[in-house]
Amino acid sequence: CVGLAALIDLVHLMFYPPRCDDDDASCPIDEEVAKLLELKARLGGDDGKHQFVLKTAKGTRDYNPKQMAIREKVFNTIISCFKRHGAETIDTPVFELKETLTGKYGEDSKLIYDLKDQGGELLSLRYDLTVPFARYLAMNKITNIKRYHIAKVYRRDNPAMTRGRYREFYQCVNDRRILDGMFAVCGVPDDKFRTICSTVDKLDKMPWEDVKKEMVNEKGLSEEAADQIGEYVSMQGGMDLAERLLQDHKMSQSKQACAGLSDIKLLFSFLQLFQVTDKVVFDLSLARGLDYYTGIIYEAVLTQAGVAAVSNEAQNGANAEESVSVGSVAGGGRYDGLVGMFDPKGRKVPCVGVSIGIERIFSIMEQKAEASAEKVRTTEVQVMVASAQKNLLEERLRLVTELWNAGIKAEVMYKKNPKLLSQLQHCEESGIPLVAILGEQELKDGVVKLRVVATREEIDIARTDLTSEIRRRTSEA
Amino acid sequence: CVGLAALIDLVHLMFYPPRCDDDDASCPIDEEVAKLLELKARLGGDDGKHQFVLKTAKGTRDYNPKQMAIREKVFNTIISCFKRHGAETIDTPVFELKETLTGKYGEDSKLIYDLKDQGGELLSLRYDLTVPFARYLAMNKITNIKRYHIAKVYRRDNPAMTRGRYREFYQCVNDRRILDGMFAVCGVPDDKFRTICSTVDKLDKMPWEDVKKEMVNEKGLSEEAADQIGEYVSMQGGMDLAERLLQDHKMSQSKQACAGLSDIKLLFSFLQLFQVTDKVVFDLSLARGLDYYTGIIYEAVLTQAGVAAVSNEAQNGANAEESVSVGSVAGGGRYDGLVGMFDPKGRKVPCVGVSIGIERIFSIMEQKAEASAEKVRTTEVQVMVASAQKNLLEERLRLVTELWNAGIKAEVMYKKNPKLLSQLQHCEESGIPLVAILGEQELKDGVVKLRVVATREEIDIARTDLTSEIRRRTSEA
Repeated sequence: CVGLAALIDLVHLMFYPPRCDDDDASCPIDEEVAKLLELKARLGGDDGKHQFVLKTAKGTRDYNPKQMAIREKVFNTIISCFKRHGAETIDTPVFELKETLTGKYGEDSKLIYDLKDQGGELLSLRYDLTVPFARYLAMNKITNIKRYHIAKVYRRDNPAMTRGRYREFYQCVNDRRILDGMFAVCGVPDDKFRTICSTVDKLDKMPWEDVKKEMVNEKGLSEEAADQIGEYVSMQGGMDLAERLLQDHKMSQSKQACAGLSDIKLLFSFLQLFQVTDKVVFDLSLARGLDYYTGIIYEAVLTQAGVAAVSNEAQNGANAEESVSVGSVAGGGRYDGLVGMFDPKGRKVPCVGVSIGIERIFSIMEQKAEASAEKVRTTEVQVMVASAQKNLLEERLRLVTELWNAGIKAEVMYKKNPKLLSQLQHCEESGIPLVAILGEQELKDGVVKLRVVATREEIDIARTDLTSEIRRRTSEA
Repeated sequence: CVGLAALIDLVHLMFYPPRCDDDDASCPIDEEVAKLLELKARLGGDDGKHQFVLKTAKGTRDYNPKQMAIREKVFNTIISCFKRHGAETIDTPVFELKETLTGKYGEDSKLIYDLKDQGGELLSLRYDLTVPFARYLAMNKITNIKRYHIAKVYRRDNPAMTRGRYREFYQCVNDRRILDGMFAVCGVPDDKFRTICSTVDKLDKMPWEDVKKEMVNEKGLSEEAADQIGEYVSMQGGMDLAERLLQDHKMSQSKQACAGLSDIKLLFSFLQLFQVTDKVVFDLSLARGLDYYTGIIYEAVLTQAGVAAVSNEAQNGANAEESVSVGSVAGGGRYDGLVGMFDPKGRKVPCVGVSIGIERIFSIMEQKAEASAEKVRTTEVQVMVASAQKNLLEERLRLVTELWNAGIKAEVMYKKNPKLLSQLQHCEESGIPLVAILGEQELKDGVVKLRVVATREEIDIARTDLTSEIRRRTSEA
């Protein structure tokens, strides 16, 4: 029962820094800086002074409060799912010993950020959360944990962020052993498995003809072998396809492939129990790049709005070529050998996990928020303590302190005599639902005027009842 | 009204990596690794193979699930305070252009981590959250924001983590202008203000005699000037002390000092409104190091258990020399010039903020948790789906799926036929309060046996009522 043999069940979230390239029109800050610098140059040029550029490092970005509110909403959705399934969370440092990352990423190693040698250890920024996790498991001799980990990872590449409206997502599944078995039975020499595999990986961006050209012309594969591979990698389906391939006269010759296919069958039997078969496609062209996968591999893919969604076809195990995949938002697989690379005795710890690319999901949510009329709140303030009269700063501070001490989220303007209009305006802009208004009369009567921002309704509330009234009126939110 | 002139009110949290030095007995992993390596060396030595060391980078650490649970509790306490006061949150990248950090930290600059030059921009890891925040404000032309920011910062130093039981904390307050004014009226030459200031900063670790020696012997100050400084920096108090110093024949000669003292008076009048004067001491010896402070400065300090707490004395404005300060857990001040350093036109944006050193607070909370009998839960699982009989894996998966879909936090053991005892043991170890037990009989009757782990009570619940019953029984938690 291999699907359940996962002693280690792990999930993690990474957020890659999205790119803000010079030619990216969606980057008003860079534009503005460029304009400023141009203006400066025209007005007098560089007079020898150090001319600094006001920007974040290439490939990185800030998050403003509105973006943070959306990001936190996305995080909370994901975290609550992990918690529902009983996962624990861990944290590891942003940099690791350079040698910890060495030999784990194949060709991708060139994208690792190294720290400058300032004496002491040679360090690198983490490239993913999987290798540090494997290091953590080996170091602490842990063989059984279901963990999630939310953190940024750092890659020196320049991925173009596809922006677009996404309608549907589905998951593709394959198994590295099926790929390797397929290569073997199609006549690919052993030492070409990895390089042919990375060519297959391009099928989501290139048509088969170009992929085949690369195999034959660049990688020196025979045309016959390439054609055989071409037949297999066009196949998509579900349980049925796995069963058919187990009977396939060529594929069945590979022990590896059969082991992979049996696992795919087992996986689909569990997917049936979980009632999610309509979201998952067994896809023989899926070939994730990283070196460390040893068994099942998978990706969650978004398809563009306006293009036929894949889900219905997937349900029928049919081909889904019409849908345009615009990007993977999550991916992962089994990596049973990685922890053993860190163990002094090479003891293996089977692992399986998924990484969610938060940046792309976040960018979709951000577009949705922009398109919607609903305002994104960046604070949770329930009530603004205000006054229409002068010289009530101390009284406002006294009341807001009362509210804070009672656990109410409250705000007060940092001005001696703010205008009532500007206080109300601030509430409308930042979505604060209530205003507690103080005046000489209210102070004398021991009441506070509570105003509902949305309806402009105003009622006098005894000061002793104020916190419970605010709680009552904001609890439904 | 300077205290309220803070257009920018900012708060942030930083967590410095605590150190795990070789001689630190609290670091079992390093010990174990050392032992392993020793053993390996004895058994056969290095046979030319690469001998890797299984560890995190010096000065960094992992957080295991238990530590994360405590850390999140600390975070949530702090975040809820920020939210209660209407703060927004932002995020900035872990590295900045090197030149963004240049010239902001004085002598501390040597502690900045630089990234290796791999082509492209020269980058450094952030040293604090204040400079990136000032860069963010200037870049986005923001003049008014109340923000908190939770993130790690990176410093190439080796602070000794004081471990101990802390009983009390209080806050010291001073003003850079009072310090500068004091130096002026005591006859310190202008060009020695900063270096004498950093000597004063050592008063929390050294007795006055040694501080004086450094001033006179190393920094070349006259003995007379040093003695005058010595008198002032021994003073601690509240509103009264500020008033007395405004009348002081020497101090009152400095315009700067008077501006600072008036602000301290104003601050204490607000502290009275907020009812927190008993926690705050005006302390003329407080001299925070960083270059960018321009006005008020403050620190939150922990005093060791068993030593007379300072709070009562502070309340009376008396001297609190007996208390042993074991470390600052938070600090900050006003830095009105920093944003202007990033603005092309040098426009100033007044700022005031505080940084909370989460690591030390976390280490205190961790010790408390260790000392207490209460178990730290690392998951929030409400119910374990279990079985006493064989071949019910599919039924367990079906039920746990039902629970997950209903939003219940549930778990199931990843084994075909786990023993009931090991399933119950897992619940006890990880604090899961309920077990939903399935057997042939229960399936036939359409019920689930719900077991309360603490009391061992068991009752049959109709399967249709299960989720509401679990919710009812776990809602008080």
